Amino acid sequence: MSPQHEMIDRPTLLLDKGRCLANIHRMAEICSQHSLSFRPHFKTHQSLEVGRWFRPYDVEKIAVSSVSMAEYFAEDWDDIMIAIPTNLRELARIDQLAKKCSLHILIEHSELIPILAKALHTSITVHIEIDAGYGRTGVDSTEIELIRSMIEGLSAKKNLRFGGFVIHNGHSYDARSVHEIRAIHHDSMDKLNELKHSFPEAHISLGDTPACSTALNFGLVDELRPGNFVFYDLTQLAIGSCQADDIAVAVACPIIAIYPDRHEIIVNAGGIHLSKDRLGIPGIGDIYGQLADMQGHHIGSLLKETYVKKLSQEHGTIHVPNPTDYRRGQLVYILPVHSCMVVDLMPYYLCAGERIEIFKHK
Amino acid sequence: MSPQHEMIDRPTLLLDKGRCLANIHRMAEICSQHSLSFRPHFKTHQSLEVGRWFRPYDVEKIAVSSVSMAEYFAEDWDDIMIAIPTNLRELARIDQLAKKCSLHILIEHSELIPILAKALHTSITVHIEIDAGYGRTGVDSTEIELIRSMIEGLSAKKNLRFGGFVIHNGHSYDARSVHEIRAIHHDSMDKLNELKHSFPEAHISLGDTPACSTALNFGLVDELRPGNFVFYDLTQLAIGSCQADDIAVAVACPIIAIYPDRHEIIVNAGGIHLSKDRLGIPGIGDIYGQLADMQGHHIGSLLKETYVKKLSQEHGTIHVPNPTDYRRGQLVYILPVHSCMVVDLMPYYLCAGERIEIFKHK
Repeated sequence: MSPQHEMIDRPTLLLDKGRCLANIHRMAEICSQHSLSFRPHFKTHQSLEVGRWFRPYDVEKIAVSSVSMAEYFAEDWDDIMIAIPTNLRELARIDQLAKKCSLHILIEHSELIPILAKALHTSITVHIEIDAGYGRTGVDSTEIELIRSMIEGLSAKKNLRFGGFVIHNGHSYDARSVHEIRAIHHDSMDKLNELKHSFPEAHISLGDTPACSTALNFGLVDELRPGNFVFYDLTQLAIGSCQADDIAVAVACPIIAIYPDRHEIIVNAGGIHLSKDRLGIPGIGDIYGQLADMQGHHIGSLLKETYVKKLSQEHGTIHVPNPTDYRRGQLVYILPVHSCMVVDLMPYYLCAGERIEIFKHK
Repeated sequence: MSPQHEMIDRPTLLLDKGRCLANIHRMAEICSQHSLSFRPHFKTHQSLEVGRWFRPYDVEKIAVSSVSMAEYFAEDWDDIMIAIPTNLRELARIDQLAKKCSLHILIEHSELIPILAKALHTSITVHIEIDAGYGRTGVDSTEIELIRSMIEGLSAKKNLRFGGFVIHNGHSYDARSVHEIRAIHHDSMDKLNELKHSFPEAHISLGDTPACSTALNFGLVDELRPGNFVFYDLTQLAIGSCQADDIAVAVACPIIAIYPDRHEIIVNAGGIHLSKDRLGIPGIGDIYGQLADMQGHHIGSLLKETYVKKLSQEHGTIHVPNPTDYRRGQLVYILPVHSCMVVDLMPYYLCAGERIEIFKHK
């Protein structure tokens, strides 16, 4: 146990600033090498302070996943994309916020255009979400005529400006190797190239961390919009997006019970701290985290053959190869399966002994 | 959509007070019929206000799942059990809290006894957690000599008082019928009866909502300590603990996209609102919720063949049989798979138009 953590009595989210800065640096370099603009998605870290760590890379625009989050980040940022199809029940708040910053919103259907034109009194940039294979939201990339009519519809409204195409290839999360990520990305690039052929002037923003982290080229894409890369996690490690020592957050958890015969330790941290998001590991099954070493304020190596196998509300059951190495009251450090979800659950980061608040409005 | 919900613009947790009061009434009746004392577990609702709804049933003692939650409820309650093995890193806070209320804590190993005796300066009641088949935490119920030595160890310390045995048969959550719940409960009762034979004076507290809701007898149990029953959820419905119209919470979610060909609607509510807890449905797979009607402030019937099939951070994908019945901007009402987890994620209840705050300290 790290001597820096003597005061920790509850599950606590630790942030390794060195790893996080390296992740930001690496993604900024990727954008620079490919001459892409960089609009980091802040839904993962949800923190004004962590957001400021992007400033040295001349980042001037961001993406978020809700109007509430946009309102929060508008304190620091002048150019914000709410990267989710527009919720028609929030138009009054969107209209208010557009007075304070350059606001970008998404649509995935033409029926929103007259509604937006009527409800919004401030000029706003509207992007069309394109589905390039994920199958969640967006206009199918092959629907050229529909897309053309939407662009024309937007251009006909004086308070709406067509901003370009936004793509999130979330199916890259099903990949389990760099090769598989690149295959999905390549397929998506083919679709976007056809789209660009029909709309050569349209700006294209691409989102997913796996492709942004590993692709060899980005075709006719103009902007990268990844979020998870700022911390990565065990899922990204399994996908092939990162290395184990890129993972920048860990949850410090007190041991409350030990069962040597079962090769299990029980920590006082459960689904309300680690989330119930899971990762399937061949030969083991679903896991909810894995232990790592801690060296001072720095996250160390993954501990082999350790995995969180079960979560209740406030209990976590961890398989360990050598249960006698542990004692009640000791802290262990769990790397999360999905960092975005864990950050959302926790009230603050502890970063080299300092508290960094996390946005807490839903 | 209920006209009462015109002002809702974000995912919002609705509480049907009528259903909740009926659930409280029913469990109080079960305790009364079986001459059991009633120590409701407040980890599910996490609300001072909802806690007050138990007062008409002469409830005077409660259970919680953390020291923080005990501190919160100590404003209203004088007898509180922290129903999780004691976290040795929180002894100072436990000692402080024991000055304000009659505090009950749990141990599952003898090694804690001298540590507690040394660290705690206020008299405190210590219960021994017994494992009667669940396999999470607790002393195996057949370890009679070990249990005897723990009771003797506690009795030898003047600031510690042995309070009895605490059992949570969480494996009842694997049941899928009342018959299966009762089989698990019956097996557990056999074990507890043997324990009671060795320790006839020891008080026995039993926890799980499935058995508390459906058992025909409770053997030599003295106290019921269920939590989830206050709201129930789709998991309890699948287990057989409740009926569909007992489920007392629903999440109102705005529709942001509709894909008729896929039979899907997309709502602006994801894993950060509904949790990633899931329920396996034969022939369908894992689901994260199901839609229900809403009549005014009251939750209505489950909508057949509707289920939340996928969750991202702030998107939910819902299968519906008739997608043309829905429109963007409309609210739908999702019954949760696991109410405890959803409540923990949400900032407040909306109950007949009034906000009820939810405890938010981890």
